[in-house]
Amino acid sequence: MAKKKPTHKRQSIRHIKTGKSPGTVTYLGNRGGVKSLVNIMEYNKQDIKESTIDVYEPSNFNKIIEHKVSLSTSWINVIGISDEKFIENLGNSLSLNPLTTEDVVNTHQRPKIDEYDHYIFGSFKMLYVDENSELVTEHLAMVLMENTVLVFQELQEDVFNSVRERARHKTGRIRTKNADYLFFALLDAIIDNYFVVLENVNQKIDYLEEEIYDNPSPKTAHAIQDLKKEILRIRRYIYPVKELISKLMDTEHALISDDTKLFLRDTMDHCTEINESLNIFREMSMSLMEMYMSNMSNKMNEVMKVLTIMASIFIPLTFIVGVYGMNFEHIPELKYPNGYFYVWGLMIVIFIGMLFYFKNKRWL
Amino acid sequence: MAKKKPTHKRQSIRHIKTGKSPGTVTYLGNRGGVKSLVNIMEYNKQDIKESTIDVYEPSNFNKIIEHKVSLSTSWINVIGISDEKFIENLGNSLSLNPLTTEDVVNTHQRPKIDEYDHYIFGSFKMLYVDENSELVTEHLAMVLMENTVLVFQELQEDVFNSVRERARHKTGRIRTKNADYLFFALLDAIIDNYFVVLENVNQKIDYLEEEIYDNPSPKTAHAIQDLKKEILRIRRYIYPVKELISKLMDTEHALISDDTKLFLRDTMDHCTEINESLNIFREMSMSLMEMYMSNMSNKMNEVMKVLTIMASIFIPLTFIVGVYGMNFEHIPELKYPNGYFYVWGLMIVIFIGMLFYFKNKRWL
Amino acid sequence: MAKKKPTHKRQSIRHIKTGKSPGTVTYLGNRGGVKSLVNIMEYNKQDIKESTIDVYEPSNFNKIIEHKVSLSTSWINVIGISDEKFIENLGNSLSLNPLTTEDVVNTHQRPKIDEYDHYIFGSFKMLYVDENSELVTEHLAMVLMENTVLVFQELQEDVFNSVRERARHKTGRIRTKNADYLFFALLDAIIDNYFVVLENVNQKIDYLEEEIYDNPSPKTAHAIQDLKKEILRIRRYIYPVKELISKLMDTEHALISDDTKLFLRDTMDHCTEINESLNIFREMSMSLMEMYMSNMSNKMNEVMKVLTIMASIFIPLTFIVGVYGMNFEHIPELKYPNGYFYVWGLMIVIFIGMLFYFKNKRWL
Amino acid sequence: MAKKKPTHKRQSIRHIKTGKSPGTVTYLGNRGGVKSLVNIMEYNKQDIKESTIDVYEPSNFNKIIEHKVSLSTSWINVIGISDEKFIENLGNSLSLNPLTTEDVVNTHQRPKIDEYDHYIFGSFKMLYVDENSELVTEHLAMVLMENTVLVFQELQEDVFNSVRERARHKTGRIRTKNADYLFFALLDAIIDNYFVVLENVNQKIDYLEEEIYDNPSPKTAHAIQDLKKEILRIRRYIYPVKELISKLMDTEHALISDDTKLFLRDTMDHCTEINESLNIFREMSMSLMEMYMSNMSNKMNEVMKVLTIMASIFIPLTFIVGVYGMNFEHIPELKYPNGYFYVWGLMIVIFIGMLFYFKNKRWL
Amino acid sequence: MAKKKPTHKRQSIRHIKTGKSPGTVTYLGNRGGVKSLVNIMEYNKQDIKESTIDVYEPSNFNKIIEHKVSLSTSWINVIGISDEKFIENLGNSLSLNPLTTEDVVNTHQRPKIDEYDHYIFGSFKMLYVDENSELVTEHLAMVLMENTVLVFQELQEDVFNSVRERARHKTGRIRTKNADYLFFALLDAIIDNYFVVLENVNQKIDYLEEEIYDNPSPKTAHAIQDLKKEILRIRRYIYPVKELISKLMDTEHALISDDTKLFLRDTMDHCTEINESLNIFREMSMSLMEMYMSNMSNKMNEVMKVLTIMASIFIPLTFIVGVYGMNFEHIPELKYPNGYFYVWGLMIVIFIGMLFYFKNKRWL
Repeated sequence: MAKKKPTHKRQSIRHIKTGKSPGTVTYLGNRGGVKSLVNIMEYNKQDIKESTIDVYEPSNFNKIIEHKVSLSTSWINVIGISDEKFIENLGNSLSLNPLTTEDVVNTHQRPKIDEYDHYIFGSFKMLYVDENSELVTEHLAMVLMENTVLVFQELQEDVFNSVRERARHKTGRIRTKNADYLFFALLDAIIDNYFVVLENVNQKIDYLEEEIYDNPSPKTAHAIQDLKKEILRIRRYIYPVKELISKLMDTEHALISDDTKLFLRDTMDHCTEINESLNIFREMSMSLMEMYMSNMSNKMNEVMKVLTIMASIFIPLTFIVGVYGMNFEHIPELKYPNGYFYVWGLMIVIFIGMLFYFKNKRWL
Repeated sequence: MAKKKPTHKRQSIRHIKTGKSPGTVTYLGNRGGVKSLVNIMEYNKQDIKESTIDVYEPSNFNKIIEHKVSLSTSWINVIGISDEKFIENLGNSLSLNPLTTEDVVNTHQRPKIDEYDHYIFGSFKMLYVDENSELVTEHLAMVLMENTVLVFQELQEDVFNSVRERARHKTGRIRTKNADYLFFALLDAIIDNYFVVLENVNQKIDYLEEEIYDNPSPKTAHAIQDLKKEILRIRRYIYPVKELISKLMDTEHALISDDTKLFLRDTMDHCTEINESLNIFREMSMSLMEMYMSNMSNKMNEVMKVLTIMASIFIPLTFIVGVYGMNFEHIPELKYPNGYFYVWGLMIVIFIGMLFYFKNKRWL
Repeated sequence: MAKKKPTHKRQSIRHIKTGKSPGTVTYLGNRGGVKSLVNIMEYNKQDIKESTIDVYEPSNFNKIIEHKVSLSTSWINVIGISDEKFIENLGNSLSLNPLTTEDVVNTHQRPKIDEYDHYIFGSFKMLYVDENSELVTEHLAMVLMENTVLVFQELQEDVFNSVRERARHKTGRIRTKNADYLFFALLDAIIDNYFVVLENVNQKIDYLEEEIYDNPSPKTAHAIQDLKKEILRIRRYIYPVKELISKLMDTEHALISDDTKLFLRDTMDHCTEINESLNIFREMSMSLMEMYMSNMSNKMNEVMKVLTIMASIFIPLTFIVGVYGMNFEHIPELKYPNGYFYVWGLMIVIFIGMLFYFKNKRWL
Repeated sequence: MAKKKPTHKRQSIRHIKTGKSPGTVTYLGNRGGVKSLVNIMEYNKQDIKESTIDVYEPSNFNKIIEHKVSLSTSWINVIGISDEKFIENLGNSLSLNPLTTEDVVNTHQRPKIDEYDHYIFGSFKMLYVDENSELVTEHLAMVLMENTVLVFQELQEDVFNSVRERARHKTGRIRTKNADYLFFALLDAIIDNYFVVLENVNQKIDYLEEEIYDNPSPKTAHAIQDLKKEILRIRRYIYPVKELISKLMDTEHALISDDTKLFLRDTMDHCTEINESLNIFREMSMSLMEMYMSNMSNKMNEVMKVLTIMASIFIPLTFIVGVYGMNFEHIPELKYPNGYFYVWGLMIVIFIGMLFYFKNKRWL
Repeated sequence: MAKKKPTHKRQSIRHIKTGKSPGTVTYLGNRGGVKSLVNIMEYNKQDIKESTIDVYEPSNFNKIIEHKVSLSTSWINVIGISDEKFIENLGNSLSLNPLTTEDVVNTHQRPKIDEYDHYIFGSFKMLYVDENSELVTEHLAMVLMENTVLVFQELQEDVFNSVRERARHKTGRIRTKNADYLFFALLDAIIDNYFVVLENVNQKIDYLEEEIYDNPSPKTAHAIQDLKKEILRIRRYIYPVKELISKLMDTEHALISDDTKLFLRDTMDHCTEINESLNIFREMSMSLMEMYMSNMSNKMNEVMKVLTIMASIFIPLTFIVGVYGMNFEHIPELKYPNGYFYVWGLMIVIFIGMLFYFKNKRWL
């Protein structure tokens, strides 16, 4: 029951969008109803300035726009994207294409990179494992403009703290570079976190493998199926990224310098490694079900052996005692003084013979 | 029995066509025998005019043709394509290639885009879920000409209401654009609806998964197989669309403006997402059968355990009581005053021992 | 036994060929020993002339060759290709390359198109379903020359009657076109028939599906395997055709006009559809075996449940009656006046308890 | 045990090579220790001369070299390649690259074609079925030089007798052609023999299929697995050949004439056919195991049915006779004069009822 | 338990890196805490000089750098890469890009080749089987510079002894060649060792196959799964190498001479062979589980047959003796003087009949 609800929800959300004109800004996520918040980090080789702006004061709104024209590099970080009105205004002020603004809030958007004349738009999924070892998926949109990187994220939490730290240290390489390096650094941070997610998947596979050997239950099959689906989902978010990085490396857009492309080559390698891991995990998750089935088969064999041994030993013996339970008037053996003990002797011989037989078949 | 009939029907319909000269207009669908109906929507920035025309009055027929030469954009919507004669006339009047007219009524046509000198022809499948949650497939043909989009559909119902609504609002972007944007908007509406169909499939997968865990029956296996076939069928209708959009984006045909190609890029992204979903659904439907088999295996194990436990406990006990049912003249135990109770004691010990044994094996 | 014979035969036939010089005319089929027969249909816009020629009269032989130089379009149809001598002579007279003549009679030839300076050679498989619903495979070779199409077929029966009919009607488009259109029309007729063959396969799949649900037997598994092999075989004959058509469309050979290429584009679409169907059938035939296995599993479960229920109910009861069949001198219950009925009561309680237990487990 | 030895051997042989400098001539096969033998066939349109040379006489050695410069075409056939010294000398005398000479004796070499300035080197596997229906694999190296084809083979037996026969007949096309045609003819003979090998595989598949239906045993599963491995091995030897032929057809090396390329096109078709067969065999061998499993399942079902029927019929009957074996003092039925016959009546009714029940379930 | 620890470790090690700036030198391996050691081998046609340097003496450090400028070829072999500080210094002194230095110590690096202006960087995995038949994986980084090859390895043990031997012999080809040939020779030695690793895998497959036939146990299934994972892991290390070699062959970097590219063509062939083997092993490992399942099925069948035979024979017999154990007052047979023997006769007939029945079914 509970399982089906999210699906219904997702459908209705999709329905909101079906039929709307392209370029309509419609938030599709389930983290709505919160006000947006903007963090700005502005830096050059010498200085760094961080500020948080209440965007609902008109004067402040213009401050965001101004950053675009300053000489130093600005990182404008918008947290919370469910306020469609605000996002649309911001997009218009920065002269983003309506299709871009639509994608900023489209949390179902597949990872993509779109190049426009004066900016490059990228949409990605931040994946991270929260304190409960649950996988969190967060939609992220980034716009690289002259001197400015605009980041839209759904939640306060993100994977960018390491980038912030490096920017705050005057000696960090990031301080000597332009906005395109910042764009790369953020992308790199996202992709670095994919490794952590993959390790989490790897642990789950190891754990399930142990469970299959030690104590498989129908719940294990359930968990394998859930893992398979999780891998398919992660794959969907992560797999296209490699192609996008490759697209960025081949671009001739003026905003990406050759220097940054060298760093992207490294990121590209990471993506290749990640995609290979995903393929391996997929194969391994398929093997898990096979293992589970073979284990079920083993257990069944064991059960059947117990039954067969018990039945094969006692059914003939029961037959023998049945014979001497018959009420015929003339059964000569019944008259033997030691008949009873002879029968016991016979039965013990049969019993031991059977044990040897099964021992021989390695069923015992 | 009932299942095989549609197949027979389909075959005979195909047979109608086998052997005919290419370019022969032959309706292959099963929604025949109805008169065609034409809705016309004509608009420009200022005005919009909607009308329904009875095409079987000769004077009216020419009205359709005239629309082609007016300055405003016309959307000529033909409903019902089983009247081969009418379709052929219309095609000739608009100087469509006979091969095009043939494809207009060929409901078995795979999705395709064909470019001719003065028009672009597209054939697609409208898929939507009706009120009974049944999937409806409707053949659709579209012709983009100068100032005009010609649409042929089988049934009254379609997925274009949202486009109509947007056209009726003076502020809609569609009113400021040319016929190629209308063509795109209709295509976009079709593809948007594919998402709804996919969600429907997704729900079925979720539902079957629950059924497999809770109460699998041979009917479940049946339903899994049907789902697999439905996914294969949907895939067949939807999968080629991505390539067609890509073809449209790369075309140098004068009828498609660069502006519209930007919107097509977005549609292209949707197609990629849809095709990925289809692949995921395919994998998941294959996993379902695996799950079902593993569940069958679990149930079998459970059945066997019950049998084995019952048999293993009572067969030895039955043997014991058999022993003392023998009629030997000299069975010393039978003479013991408490022999009967000793035997009960022995049997209870065996019984409890067996329980411990199976408890230990985790079969209980 | 009977099954292996054709294989042996096929091997020995292949052996005939192994080691021969390339270009040697060797008939490999199993429809040998018949005299060849030639039907000629000669037509232009005004006239049509049909004749059957006994090629074993020398004067007639030259008549065939003469057709090549007449102005009207000739369709020379050779029926029966096991007379290697005649085929070789004909090939030489028409200056065909020896490799071509070899392929004309090589019934094991994979579909192919070879272009030579003054002709285009094509080898295909005609597939059709005969009156016994058996699939018939017939090797077919076609040569497109200036004004002439030369067709070689193994049997009288073919799929070209519709083309003949259309040629006999003065208004048929075929009469206004050249030999390349005839070549296309024949190809189109062959491919149209593939649809009928595929529908036949589709029906077999439907039929097997029903059999699996209703009454699976080892014979069903046999039939599934046979179907798989049939699909693999059909696939082998049909799959390469798409690529060949595409080759024809891209050719710059003078014998194929641009007009005909437009028609080939349509045929190409059909091939794509056919190949998609073949892939779907392949997947479905693989699912069939899965279904069969799951059904076997279901049946086994059912059998085991019956056994388990019977055994679980009666084994304990038999134990109880065994207890009171013991011959101890002091069994107090035996003395009770109603002891017998008490035992019956106890047994009925156990019986009903068991029924409830199994009902609860949904085994009943 | 015996099975693992060849593996060890193969490993140690590989070990011989590991660490050696590239270009070192090291024989890796297991047909070592024999002296090499050289057959020479020299022919032109008019004459043909065959000779066998003892290469261990120095004067003879030069004779081999001289052949290269004569005007007629020479086929130098070296039999036995385990004499590394001799092969190295021969290679040097004919100015072959050391890497070529290494490959001549490297029996583990994957099929390949390498082009050098003055010669073309090819390495293939001759596969044939010997009189015991065992598959024999023989390493073969061929060098095409001006006027000369140099062939290295491991054993006396080969697949070239048909080529020799054709060369001996003055009218054979081969006599009118150059060395490149001889090279092609040998290649063609090798590939022709692949068909025989494939037919052998096909027969094994047919045979196993019958065995699965008629009398499957664990040995059958073993045979299926062996067949799978054989197909994988053959595939490894044969599959790359197609690509090599295609490379030969596209080469611009002066040694291959356009005329010969036309013949290669034919060989290419054969390779395509062979590779398709290999793929089909692979699929069929995978189906075999599925069939085997389904058959096991059927047999298990049959066994279980026998058990269930026997147990279900006799367990209740045994319970009934047990009831009247109880020793209660007051069992009214025991006193009935016909009680015994009534009980028999009841039991017969139950027996027949059971038979009907199982008949109804189609278990009988 | 023990199994999960390495995973945890790996994760934490990865965590060390997550968030660090790209180009940071961080050792990720588990062979840390050892001082680095440098072996230098310097040679030209005439001389060879080998030395081991304690790099922690400042004067020595410069010696390493000097080697780069000498005229002879230097092979600088750094053993132990966990001293991040030293590696970073060395990298800087030789003006390696920081990204290169990072990759030198990144033991998780996927095999790669990066070209820079004045050097070519390669990262590979050395795989070898140690004395306990355990697979050892060692990270290896190689830098090809003018006159110098710089090698970084984790452990003392490596696969380069054969190269060292060849360099020490004055006649070795390696002495006459430049640094690029040395680079090739090292690569070739690594790849040669992959064959040994593959043979080890092959033996494991053979061994498991035997175990499956002779004595399968749940541990066998475990071993199959482990083998599958090992193959996936080896594949990950080895598979990309082919592409890298191909990249090297196509490079136009001045450091790689055409002469060396000819040798690389040979290495390329080896890589193709290795990758084919890997694919075959993957298929075979998948077949193993299938075999295991079919064997389980066979064993189950055997168990069930024993049970069914025992039960089918003795259950009816037990019923018969039960009949004559009934206490009816009037059971005529009981009075027959030879009744007891008649019953035995009947039972023996049934017994033998049953044996024939099962013999007939081939269950015995």
